[in-house]
Amino acid sequence: MPGAYKELVATHHRLERHYRDMLDLEFTIQEGKLFMLQTRVGKRTGLAAVRIAVDMVKEGLISKREAVLRVAPDQLAQYLYPIFDAAEEAKCTALGKGLPAGPGAAAGKIALTPDRAVEMQARGDRVVLVRQETSPDDIHGMHASLGFLTARGGMTSHAAVVARQMGKVCVAGCEAVEVENATTVRIGSLVFKEGDYLSINGSTGNVYKGDIPVVESEVIQVVQGRMDARKSEKYGYFSTLMSWADEIRRLKVRANADIPDQAKIARGFGAEGIGLCRTEHMFFAEDRIPIMQQMILARTREDRECYLDQLLPLQKQDFIGLYREMKGFPVTIRLLDPPLHEFLPKREDLMVDIARLELTSGNPGIIEEKRRLLARVEELHEFNPMLGLRGCRLGITMPEITRMQARAIIEAACEVAREGKKIVPEIMIPLVGMVTEMKAQKDLIREVAEETMKRCGAKLSYLVGTMIELPRAAVTAKRIAEEAEFFSFGTNDLTQTTFGFSRDDAAKFVGIYKTENILEADPFAVLDREGVGALMRMAITEGRQARPGLKLGICGEHGGDPSSVEFCHQLGLDYVSCSPYRVPIARLAAAQAALTGADTQKTTGKPSKQRSGRSADRTVSRRQTSHRRGHTGRSRQVR
Amino acid sequence: MPGAYKELVATHHRLERHYRDMLDLEFTIQEGKLFMLQTRVGKRTGLAAVRIAVDMVKEGLISKREAVLRVAPDQLAQYLYPIFDAAEEAKCTALGKGLPAGPGAAAGKIALTPDRAVEMQARGDRVVLVRQETSPDDIHGMHASLGFLTARGGMTSHAAVVARQMGKVCVAGCEAVEVENATTVRIGSLVFKEGDYLSINGSTGNVYKGDIPVVESEVIQVVQGRMDARKSEKYGYFSTLMSWADEIRRLKVRANADIPDQAKIARGFGAEGIGLCRTEHMFFAEDRIPIMQQMILARTREDRECYLDQLLPLQKQDFIGLYREMKGFPVTIRLLDPPLHEFLPKREDLMVDIARLELTSGNPGIIEEKRRLLARVEELHEFNPMLGLRGCRLGITMPEITRMQARAIIEAACEVAREGKKIVPEIMIPLVGMVTEMKAQKDLIREVAEETMKRCGAKLSYLVGTMIELPRAAVTAKRIAEEAEFFSFGTNDLTQTTFGFSRDDAAKFVGIYKTENILEADPFAVLDREGVGALMRMAITEGRQARPGLKLGICGEHGGDPSSVEFCHQLGLDYVSCSPYRVPIARLAAAQAALTGADTQKTTGKPSKQRSGRSADRTVSRRQTSHRRGHTGRSRQVR
Repeated sequence: MPGAYKELVATHHRLERHYRDMLDLEFTIQEGKLFMLQTRVGKRTGLAAVRIAVDMVKEGLISKREAVLRVAPDQLAQYLYPIFDAAEEAKCTALGKGLPAGPGAAAGKIALTPDRAVEMQARGDRVVLVRQETSPDDIHGMHASLGFLTARGGMTSHAAVVARQMGKVCVAGCEAVEVENATTVRIGSLVFKEGDYLSINGSTGNVYKGDIPVVESEVIQVVQGRMDARKSEKYGYFSTLMSWADEIRRLKVRANADIPDQAKIARGFGAEGIGLCRTEHMFFAEDRIPIMQQMILARTREDRECYLDQLLPLQKQDFIGLYREMKGFPVTIRLLDPPLHEFLPKREDLMVDIARLELTSGNPGIIEEKRRLLARVEELHEFNPMLGLRGCRLGITMPEITRMQARAIIEAACEVAREGKKIVPEIMIPLVGMVTEMKAQKDLIREVAEETMKRCGAKLSYLVGTMIELPRAAVTAKRIAEEAEFFSFGTNDLTQTTFGFSRDDAAKFVGIYKTENILEADPFAVLDREGVGALMRMAITEGRQARPGLKLGICGEHGGDPSSVEFCHQLGLDYVSCSPYRVPIARLAAAQAALTGADTQKTTGKPSKQRSGRSADRTVSRRQTSHRRGHTGRSRQVR
Repeated sequence: MPGAYKELVATHHRLERHYRDMLDLEFTIQEGKLFMLQTRVGKRTGLAAVRIAVDMVKEGLISKREAVLRVAPDQLAQYLYPIFDAAEEAKCTALGKGLPAGPGAAAGKIALTPDRAVEMQARGDRVVLVRQETSPDDIHGMHASLGFLTARGGMTSHAAVVARQMGKVCVAGCEAVEVENATTVRIGSLVFKEGDYLSINGSTGNVYKGDIPVVESEVIQVVQGRMDARKSEKYGYFSTLMSWADEIRRLKVRANADIPDQAKIARGFGAEGIGLCRTEHMFFAEDRIPIMQQMILARTREDRECYLDQLLPLQKQDFIGLYREMKGFPVTIRLLDPPLHEFLPKREDLMVDIARLELTSGNPGIIEEKRRLLARVEELHEFNPMLGLRGCRLGITMPEITRMQARAIIEAACEVAREGKKIVPEIMIPLVGMVTEMKAQKDLIREVAEETMKRCGAKLSYLVGTMIELPRAAVTAKRIAEEAEFFSFGTNDLTQTTFGFSRDDAAKFVGIYKTENILEADPFAVLDREGVGALMRMAITEGRQARPGLKLGICGEHGGDPSSVEFCHQLGLDYVSCSPYRVPIARLAAAQAALTGADTQKTTGKPSKQRSGRSADRTVSRRQTSHRRGHTGRSRQVR
């Protein structure tokens, strides 16, 4: 039927020109006559979405701006993370579903303790670490694993945050998982032993039995220097689209990175600085944690200072590494933040050890030592550590810690400056709720900084600012801005305190809340504009009133969520900061926010849905529905 | 020197008439000539302050309004609490000092566990309970004791809140205390055994060795019906001043009371309703906690409902008792609030038990049972229980709990209504952060209430409202007020989340913060006007915008603090609610707030100092200073 064929081809071209997108067409030919039944924008994978958008620009069909709007930021994930072979995954049935807390796919042998994960990796195994929940002392095991599966914890639990920052796969808070002991775990109806194969999909939350084949990300290989950019067609498409996004966006994008390796990856993904370096992560390293523990157990300021002196050169080296990687881009360093007991053994573990030793051990010395340790852990024990002795409360009650950190930051900067690199450290004081806290810490830092620069014979600029992560900080932002030179919204903590939701515990009821339509989205994943957003707006208005040039950013996990990035653009922030692996997603989201032209005035209501590829899709779909209605009768006739 | 004497008497009268207060005078007579050197308002005890004020009104020297301003509200404490014999206390040296968390004086034998406290009281001993910290399962031991001394915890720790509500003496967070085991406690440099005598002053925080004699409060004896009001001169003075305060104040004063006994005391102190009945306290009673535990351990909704059915009649009886005591005054009942694990044994205790049993017991059944219990406790365990599954999150995830409570509240009201008493229950939903939570719970309550009234063949009014205790509730108050018929500010929790201070843990650094001038006052004791107050003001403005007749109160511990009461008056609240024993203090503070005429406009700054007796004192002091300056030269001459 060459006539009908010709008409079909012509109609196809006409429709694609009209919608300027790749289309699915439905048609029939009856008695030689072509009937178009319906059409819609064709579904496509993330990989295809970028490719189609870039190709259509090259073919002159759409503009670069339109191309940037054609790809939903989250679709980039397929470029950035390893994914399961789709056909193979489709054959498997999930044993359970948790939160998609660290995107990508991982398959490997189960390890149930961090130590075993390290051993298994050392002998060449791919490892998936399965834990009831992770804590900072699991960090070596997390490094050794491709992905983590936890029974408990939400989107900003320890496992989730670490996973995203390291670029590891993570399924968190999977209720089907029950770790029975150090060698056995039950998942759904099955029992697994250490060493059994398991596959986890951190983009969907699905957990599977067995070893599903994984396809590596070419973009990651290029960024890590394991592949030549010119040899990767995918990287070519990806970086072309990214370069268009960069021309459009106003928001800067920084990365949350603690160590030089992460900083390097972040630069590879286009980060324009570090928005959050969490200094405590540096102390969990194996060679440092014993010194840190001694420091905490010390009874006097003098003893503490002696251990801090040992930590100083290590911390300084970390900063030098970060400054060098960031090559002149700003580096925001947050002073010590977590409660100190996170660095010590767990209280209940010590209690159980002591109870056992009392019944079995003939060595009273060991028991005595454990008891002493427990006594200190008890002293530091808190009912609600998130609301306890942490953040700047540490630096105010133990100013020697702030002194050491300020000295390390400035000494490192002086050293890198001598190499001819420009560096402006931004020193960030965590958990400020009162201007008096801000002032006390800032005065101390300024004093140490002046002293240090004098000793080093150098002169450099640095900023002292704060996180805005407590409602009281937002409400009293005007006074705090009199002392702070920048604000960075710590929206994880701000969400915690605004809602009164513990980020480690809320997963339990947030799921039910979503089902019951109490909540539209997990506020730890998508920024709550009505509540948390209102406090942010208050802080921005009042802060800029007190200090017109106040630098504003966000460093909570929301910095990498497209809808939240849009909101940050509307609020007029200077930058967002997110996990290194989400930097491209934030860059694209920032460009889309700039294009859709939403401004602060419009955003008092609920989170608007993503404008992007998906929204274009919706528009056409709606038309498609009317087409369908119009044609229903005829469709029946022709079938 | 009769001339000089006559002149002195005349001057004395003239000065007292001028200052209209009892004065200290300093004078000299040189060469027969009288020189007045200085004068100031005489220092007096609380007992004397009331007496002098009332007498001066009777003598026509001052007005009732002036009398009300002459007594600092906290001075009433001497009428309301047992106090140590001043001479005896002066002879003793304090072993340590904690927070003055429950005013009054107590002396008795040390008990180190709640069970022992009950036994010792049963055999006639006066008991002081000494604990590292208290928890809800200590409640029977707390009932049996005159006072509590804890090593840890702040002004709103469990021990402190319970003490004030029960009218017990409490010294909390005393660092000198270290409970070594169930029979020994170290306090400062001394070691005490169970049964040794200890004296604690809950008004100063001092802790003494031995048995210091205590003088009982006559006012309490009258209120408790143990003394005839006409026979107590002290009660006469006290109630006269109180009646004048009542004529002046605009703010209503209610009490926080959970059981009929407390409600009765509260009425005796002049409470005009119950502002907070914490229903969970009813479940800690010995006959109820096993049912509560079964309910929590139940795996299905049906099982839970079966245990809730057993709790229903008990809960209903509680409410009937409260309604009867309050004789038509409003009763605000808060639905179940605390995290469920508070009703279960402690996680670490179970872990230690199991570890020991594994090594010693031949009975695997017991171990298995403990393990099952631990498994459920683990499931409920939270890192930050204050920010976890509690408040309305319980009622939304387990609506059967709300159903039972709503039914008990309404059934009890119907029953009391049949006795001819008017009763309007105010049902309060705790920890609301989103209007959707409020609506879901309100709809459920309305449904149960209608059903219940139909079944009882009665029709009565009731209100459904919420606590405002999360920053998000304050920020979104306009929407919440569309559903809530009243707001009660839960300033304990609101302070917690606004500052990010855990009320159980903050004592550690709040002390240092005060020394370092980071904080002026403990925000759990004195309401933070700048931060928490700003959120309250926001909630009031927005709430009244949405619902002009919105009833507004406060039920946090601040409801009994004079400076906070003043602020509540300025904010335009309808009532404050506080511990029964602080009701008179709140009544006097409310009257003073009305007299000083401060209004909302003036109160954007820092907490103003108490206006009251003390402030009158200051005025004269200032004059006195100028007198002194004027006279300095001459004083030197005459000496």
